[in-house]
Amino acid sequence: MTSTASVPTHAVAVPTFGKFFLPGPTDVHPEVLEAMIRPMIGHRSSSMEKLLQGIAPKLGAICRTARPVFVGTTSATGFMEMAVRNGVRHRALSLVNGAFSERFAGIVAACGKECIRLDVPLGSAIEPDMLRDALKRTPVDAVTCVHSETSTGVLQDVAGYAEVVKEFDDVLLLVDAVTSMCGSPVETDAWKLDFVFTGSQKALALPPGLALGVASERLVNRAKTLEERGAYFDVIGFLNATTKFQPTNTPAVSLLYALEVQLARMEREGGIEARWKRHDAMRRRVEAWSAEHGVKFLPREGRHSWTVSCLRLPEGKHSKDVVGALKQQGWTIGAGYGALKDSTIRIGHMGDHTVAALDDLLPRIGQALE
Amino acid sequence: MTSTASVPTHAVAVPTFGKFFLPGPTDVHPEVLEAMIRPMIGHRSSSMEKLLQGIAPKLGAICRTARPVFVGTTSATGFMEMAVRNGVRHRALSLVNGAFSERFAGIVAACGKECIRLDVPLGSAIEPDMLRDALKRTPVDAVTCVHSETSTGVLQDVAGYAEVVKEFDDVLLLVDAVTSMCGSPVETDAWKLDFVFTGSQKALALPPGLALGVASERLVNRAKTLEERGAYFDVIGFLNATTKFQPTNTPAVSLLYALEVQLARMEREGGIEARWKRHDAMRRRVEAWSAEHGVKFLPREGRHSWTVSCLRLPEGKHSKDVVGALKQQGWTIGAGYGALKDSTIRIGHMGDHTVAALDDLLPRIGQALE
Repeated sequence: MTSTASVPTHAVAVPTFGKFFLPGPTDVHPEVLEAMIRPMIGHRSSSMEKLLQGIAPKLGAICRTARPVFVGTTSATGFMEMAVRNGVRHRALSLVNGAFSERFAGIVAACGKECIRLDVPLGSAIEPDMLRDALKRTPVDAVTCVHSETSTGVLQDVAGYAEVVKEFDDVLLLVDAVTSMCGSPVETDAWKLDFVFTGSQKALALPPGLALGVASERLVNRAKTLEERGAYFDVIGFLNATTKFQPTNTPAVSLLYALEVQLARMEREGGIEARWKRHDAMRRRVEAWSAEHGVKFLPREGRHSWTVSCLRLPEGKHSKDVVGALKQQGWTIGAGYGALKDSTIRIGHMGDHTVAALDDLLPRIGQALE
Repeated sequence: MTSTASVPTHAVAVPTFGKFFLPGPTDVHPEVLEAMIRPMIGHRSSSMEKLLQGIAPKLGAICRTARPVFVGTTSATGFMEMAVRNGVRHRALSLVNGAFSERFAGIVAACGKECIRLDVPLGSAIEPDMLRDALKRTPVDAVTCVHSETSTGVLQDVAGYAEVVKEFDDVLLLVDAVTSMCGSPVETDAWKLDFVFTGSQKALALPPGLALGVASERLVNRAKTLEERGAYFDVIGFLNATTKFQPTNTPAVSLLYALEVQLARMEREGGIEARWKRHDAMRRRVEAWSAEHGVKFLPREGRHSWTVSCLRLPEGKHSKDVVGALKQQGWTIGAGYGALKDSTIRIGHMGDHTVAALDDLLPRIGQALE
């Protein structure tokens, strides 16, 4: 190895795009993958500051907020813990309608806080009235919920929750928007969400490893009163660093390069609203197909996620066979999750996927179901 | 965008290697950077299981342990918090001799535990006898320390600490080996370290975003008794997942690809002992140069880190000028850290760097000091 030799430009096989439909990680565009080849920079350098300053307004635009958007080197589950450690004083009400809302409830308990649960069957949503009733019965200081429950494809009425929470004193709303943010409307500021977060590998279509989050002023004030909130997921630490365009710790530099490129791509393609529109069209495409083929969605109409379609398989069909048949043709979709593993399939149509790709995919699923 | 089109192989500019000598992130070899272009896989897929199963024995070999090596999507600071949340019951003694050992102490307090400090001036080490005296005076249930203090280039006697800790009942030794592991001997099992961790962007020479850690059985038993340890940095969760070759959450897939390639490269190049030898030679190369040029190390002889040389600048010289002069020639070294920012420079000679590269770098530093 000669130390200072410049390695020449050479051919690198860039992978195919458009056949990988897991509900996360989702397919990553070659241009975004390539960004990760850039050499390292110091995280306390002016190059890093410039990078973070450049992406800050774009992050605000996609998260629909005027507040600083935190970028952490962690999976989204880490920011779920951030929500709990900084947002729950003593007792939270956890709305549980699937595996990820279950995880949120579990983290409340794992952080040593009291967790009151409001459970509904898998595939169902918790309606705002049910939240109101629960809050009347049970004084809590925070509510945890999942906007788009990735395990069941249910989209919940988070705007409605936010209205309800305002009727009560000193209750914060903590929202997992992992598969909704950048895939369907999440109005962080307009809805007055107290903490909302997502992961890089969902509708943002980046490789996994980063989480994005936004904290309201109310949550920041709450955090200041909570000792034992630790360092790695400390909202105050993130706020101080982010407002100075600094990372909190050594960040995943390569993933920040990918984020920078993806934010520029999103802007070029019409911004967040164009993205919502495309995701809405993809959801409607699956709905039209399901109606034609008599394949039912697990959630009721009006509660379908825009990014994950969870379909009930006809009697006698097994997810393993459908997923396997697609795999043989080079396509990846998801089996069901947890108790629904065998009886449902999940199509993750988010990120950079298109209706055209679904036009190609859906007939293959149809064949596999014959 | 056509959905299923195979994007053709094309030329990608692979960056130069060998001129970036920060004490982290450090230069990443082009072969490792390229690994990150691979397409996504599901983290619950058999491909992921195979990847994790394939790297497990190699991770054990470089961490010198027969125990499972945890790989987390986090900066090393996250695993520092893991050490505290899972390893400190009520009160820890923190050995503080620089910015990163200071951070360790800070995290003890931030997690709501009592922190007793043993401080020495910057550039000094805490000797095992001092630890013994402190433990006699102060009953604690854990000790935190930094093996190679990146801010001052001091290598501490962790093997000696481990001997001392055994003289006391129920005291765990928690070790930040961020710039020592894979750069100089860290005998996890032989020394009986209770928790030891590093980050990907130091002597492993990967991009930042992953942390590696090993927990002793004693620490696992302690963790089980600690409520409020949370989920993201839960040792029990990591143990259960790792032994099944599963990630705990969605991992940074691209960084795992890089890790897989780098572990194979390390094996090809003679394994961990060859790596230590090369790092030892790099340290000795800087020592020889410093003796010739009358540029003193900050730490005393015998306490020089093998991966970070921290040099005191001659009277009247400012780190900004030296770092800047190198920068103009396309080379990156580190200024001092914190209070030592102006008066010292730090050469991060770790990872895939070579003595040959130092032969090229050191005369340039000499010129900048003239």
